[in-house]
Amino acid sequence: MLELRLVQGSLLKKVLESIKDLVTDANFDCSATGFSLQAMDSSHVALVALLLRSEGFEHYRCDRSISMGMNLGNMSKMLKCAGNDDIITIKADDGSDTVTFMFESPTQDKISDFEMKLMDIDSEHLGIPEAEYHAIVRMPSAEFARICKDLSGIGDTVVISVTKEGVKFSTRGDIGTANIVCRQNTTVDKPEEATIIEMNEPVSLTFALRYMNSFTKASPLSNTVTISLSSELPVVVEYKIAEMGYIRFYLAPKIEEDEDETKPQV
Amino acid sequence: MLELRLVQGSLLKKVLESIKDLVTDANFDCSATGFSLQAMDSSHVALVALLLRSEGFEHYRCDRSISMGMNLGNMSKMLKCAGNDDIITIKADDGSDTVTFMFESPTQDKISDFEMKLMDIDSEHLGIPEAEYHAIVRMPSAEFARICKDLSGIGDTVVISVTKEGVKFSTRGDIGTANIVCRQNTTVDKPEEATIIEMNEPVSLTFALRYMNSFTKASPLSNTVTISLSSELPVVVEYKIAEMGYIRFYLAPKIEEDEDETKPQV
Amino acid sequence: MLELRLVQGSLLKKVLESIKDLVTDANFDCSATGFSLQAMDSSHVALVALLLRSEGFEHYRCDRSISMGMNLGNMSKMLKCAGNDDIITIKADDGSDTVTFMFESPTQDKISDFEMKLMDIDSEHLGIPEAEYHAIVRMPSAEFARICKDLSGIGDTVVISVTKEGVKFSTRGDIGTANIVCRQNTTVDKPEEATIIEMNEPVSLTFALRYMNSFTKASPLSNTVTISLSSELPVVVEYKIAEMGYIRFYLAPKIEEDEDETKPQV
Repeated sequence: MLELRLVQGSLLKKVLESIKDLVTDANFDCSATGFSLQAMDSSHVALVALLLRSEGFEHYRCDRSISMGMNLGNMSKMLKCAGNDDIITIKADDGSDTVTFMFESPTQDKISDFEMKLMDIDSEHLGIPEAEYHAIVRMPSAEFARICKDLSGIGDTVVISVTKEGVKFSTRGDIGTANIVCRQNTTVDKPEEATIIEMNEPVSLTFALRYMNSFTKASPLSNTVTISLSSELPVVVEYKIAEMGYIRFYLAPKIEEDEDETKPQV
Repeated sequence: MLELRLVQGSLLKKVLESIKDLVTDANFDCSATGFSLQAMDSSHVALVALLLRSEGFEHYRCDRSISMGMNLGNMSKMLKCAGNDDIITIKADDGSDTVTFMFESPTQDKISDFEMKLMDIDSEHLGIPEAEYHAIVRMPSAEFARICKDLSGIGDTVVISVTKEGVKFSTRGDIGTANIVCRQNTTVDKPEEATIIEMNEPVSLTFALRYMNSFTKASPLSNTVTISLSSELPVVVEYKIAEMGYIRFYLAPKIEEDEDETKPQV
Repeated sequence: MLELRLVQGSLLKKVLESIKDLVTDANFDCSATGFSLQAMDSSHVALVALLLRSEGFEHYRCDRSISMGMNLGNMSKMLKCAGNDDIITIKADDGSDTVTFMFESPTQDKISDFEMKLMDIDSEHLGIPEAEYHAIVRMPSAEFARICKDLSGIGDTVVISVTKEGVKFSTRGDIGTANIVCRQNTTVDKPEEATIIEMNEPVSLTFALRYMNSFTKASPLSNTVTISLSSELPVVVEYKIAEMGYIRFYLAPKIEEDEDETKPQV
């Protein structure tokens, strides 16, 4: 028997909106510690890892660990029917091949039950080792989303370069080149507007903008985003989910075959 | 000579927006008592009845009853040119084959005349007998619109079931099933937020969601909607038009050939 | 060496949005007096003239007059990456085949450089003689935009007729006719809401609505628009750019071959 009651149901709606375009089908893993997901995107280039800890739920009952395969597009269709202030409860009976999403309006005048078929999905759980990163950038999530969107009007890839002074996002395309520099800035009125750089050594890596843009769909979940970079490691783009967990996106850097031709001049 | 002056011109704009996708061409009937319309949708499944009583107009002159055939798409194009605060006057000379819509801005600085050709449309006026309904549900129009929209993401038909406790909207589709229950609730701060159920006997009927969704385009006309249900009678979905009349949509229930297969489990 | 620093960068964004659909490629001319452009639309029917005077820039350095050929679509893509509160600096080195747009956020925490290739564009600069106009109408730019948009739902051309009392916009199409009269009105609370008519003699001219609609994309630049009309002269539709200059659109009137058939009844 599984019964997870989430008072802030809009969180789950936002989680689905942030991953449904990247991942088609995925197993949600439910255990005593929390509700989680790990999945590759359909072209096996990017990895998503979600964790919602059990403490974040008003009520959390999970008698035994189970893995529930869901089509994220269909799950999103159902969650869209929940109001933004609704309480969402996820329910599944032992051995059942369905999951039920229950939505309760704040006044309790409207109660909805949506039942969805589960799927069998082959998946291997990847161990993601803790790593030391050369540079960690924390910045406003809306700013990062704006930069990725702006640059994709010019080119297909972004070079992210971190120095002590700031982080630079560069691209190059048919119509020209673009460089956007965000300076380290910790003296802001609101902490979530800060741009904070922790750097052990300078790093400069190239990524496909298509994926970066997809990751930024998680921006509604958090005011800030953390970007962790190391040469020869996938970048981690992390959005914290307040008091519950996180959603993390992993993407391997592109190896430039001929740097002179494809790398923006910096 | 016909001259109908409507101070709240936006009402007429909203009326057109609510029926123009359902009905292509229709006769507007104008008599001493009011301005009305009765028309079937193009597939002859749903019926619309509109009444704007003469008392609701600032000035109402209709020397003799006439029927004016109009293309609702063209009429809507013209009414879209009226500002939301404009006064709208409908004018027609006796024997003329045109109708004129005059729009006056509140400051009288801008006066527009739009003249449209009338059409000859065959139509038979159906007598709609007053009927006793098994159940009458009054609920917020925005809530009803939201439910119809949400359910059409899951299935094609909706089963509306009324009991003393509440009204249930159910559907079933390839991706699963959905049940939304709205409880009777009369103790709300604002009367228009109430859900009120008058029931003589329980009733459960199935309708095409496509039409229900179309009817809900009338939601801007009224904060509440009244749904009147009886077995073997068409449902009536009614939006009152403040102090002037109403717009009513009639739709026959679907007869389920094999209930077990197509009816959601309730 | 060219370096033009515009504190209100959003002005340049709005200028591009107002002309990029009309003109594909154009030369921007930069001299000691200002930054200007003159270009025909791609079908050589309408003419755009832009002037941003040097005094309007915070910093204006232009060592020698140059003409920079740009693709307006690409330039618009780059300017869209500027925030609405950003300071925009246009830079070009002598003899360089590129131009650089620099965007500085108000807090100076984000600095962007966009470099774009210049193009060789053949163009002849037309001398536009100062002319006496029969009638000059000044009216709210949003009102003029609304009228052009509304009329293009009915017909393809607009007849603009000016008398002492007001200005009339008329059209005719398959579904009927439309006449919109705006009365002279100088006693308004806000000066920008006035409709002011200076008339030497009555005038009535016909124009393609497609172009008029395109011109109204400049409405965000100014609360008012000035329309100058004379028989046998192109109309001038002018939007002032506060304290800096203007954008002017010129369009030749249509000559009606058979007035009785195509002219709206007035």
